[in-house]
Amino acid sequence: MNDHALYLIPVLLGETTVSKVIPPYNIGVVSRLRYFIVEDVRSARRFLKKCNPQIDIDALTFFELNKHTDKKEIASYLTPMKKGESIGVISEAGCPAIADPGADVVAIAQQKGYKVVPLVGPSSLLMAIMASGFNGQSFAFHGYLPINAGERAIKLKQYENRAYSEDQTQLFIETPYRNQKLAEDILQHCKPQTQLCIAINISCDDEYIVTRNIRTWKGKLPDMHKKPTVFLIYKGY
Amino acid sequence: MNDHALYLIPVLLGETTVSKVIPPYNIGVVSRLRYFIVEDVRSARRFLKKCNPQIDIDALTFFELNKHTDKKEIASYLTPMKKGESIGVISEAGCPAIADPGADVVAIAQQKGYKVVPLVGPSSLLMAIMASGFNGQSFAFHGYLPINAGERAIKLKQYENRAYSEDQTQLFIETPYRNQKLAEDILQHCKPQTQLCIAINISCDDEYIVTRNIRTWKGKLPDMHKKPTVFLIYKGY
Repeated sequence: MNDHALYLIPVLLGETTVSKVIPPYNIGVVSRLRYFIVEDVRSARRFLKKCNPQIDIDALTFFELNKHTDKKEIASYLTPMKKGESIGVISEAGCPAIADPGADVVAIAQQKGYKVVPLVGPSSLLMAIMASGFNGQSFAFHGYLPINAGERAIKLKQYENRAYSEDQTQLFIETPYRNQKLAEDILQHCKPQTQLCIAINISCDDEYIVTRNIRTWKGKLPDMHKKPTVFLIYKGY
Repeated sequence: MNDHALYLIPVLLGETTVSKVIPPYNIGVVSRLRYFIVEDVRSARRFLKKCNPQIDIDALTFFELNKHTDKKEIASYLTPMKKGESIGVISEAGCPAIADPGADVVAIAQQKGYKVVPLVGPSSLLMAIMASGFNGQSFAFHGYLPINAGERAIKLKQYENRAYSEDQTQLFIETPYRNQKLAEDILQHCKPQTQLCIAINISCDDEYIVTRNIRTWKGKLPDMHKKPTVFLIYKGY
């Protein structure tokens, strides 16, 4: 590494091997870093060991960044960069700063004028769009839907409308133990001809990515309880 | 490969090495495939040779899928799958079925009930979101903006409004030789406090991903002429 930078380091999505989803270049980068900002220290250590069993984990410094972290504290995590050190950012699953709190520290790094370098790795959102067959020239990710039944129904209809009026693929996710409920809500509130792609355990051995219309899904939903799942809806015909 | 499937195979984004952005697993997959649906035959052959110089390119069958391809012809490209053969999909740059015509053949494969398997690789859109510091819990990609000046101004303001009203990161791209013009249009039409991330040549040696507000960018735009660039806007403060 010639320049010091904030490296955004994707990790595995569930139980799979490093060589399946991580480019060799990333192993070199993580092996040279001494500072990490991580969503969960335990899982970050496990990932680093998988990348390179030679890494001396105890010599590394970890700063924890998750929803419990005080926003004021985050800027201090970047102090090593002032001294010319690089830092890695690692989230719980997939790509940091996508659907996790990592974007806060990236925003501060950009404000301070530090170099930010995203590395390649698995993104369940992007891979779900690719495999859905839906529009990849226009798409929107909305994170989590509201839990309240009334608000959720309104949001679902609003996103469905956008799929038709803007020809835009709509993506959202749910806490894994509530996936089955969300799938049923989608079947209840969306039009029979609307297309729904259910993408479960992406990049893992039991990966399941299937697109059907709402009418066809009824009574035939797969088991997605506690499994990481991406939901995509798109206009039908 | 136990199952036959439609494999979605990402390629390099410009001049970089395979090991920097492609997981080792992908090399095994492309080395075993005999059929490919590609956006451009020449660049697909070059990529396959880079992945594995041992591949006998002349023994492979290529079907070309780009904006000139007759939609009716696309379904016939999947004929080898009926006989239990797997097929790879390769676009000009980055991830197939994202911002390219590949989604059409994926949609047909899903309709026919074929297994679709997305592989990991570089996505300029996703990597730009990661490194922008903008909201990664809500984002929308809009493809190309209209060329007509009036329509373009309307769209830019509409997307900027959504960045504020929905707290949503807005992404778009342009034909590389018109990048400079688009950047100037953004500076002209967006609010001074709105944030703009310009992400040029992602994953290449001269990668440049910088976030500033519109006010700060004025008079200081980088050279992006003919360089693949992603533009992202987000609410300022």
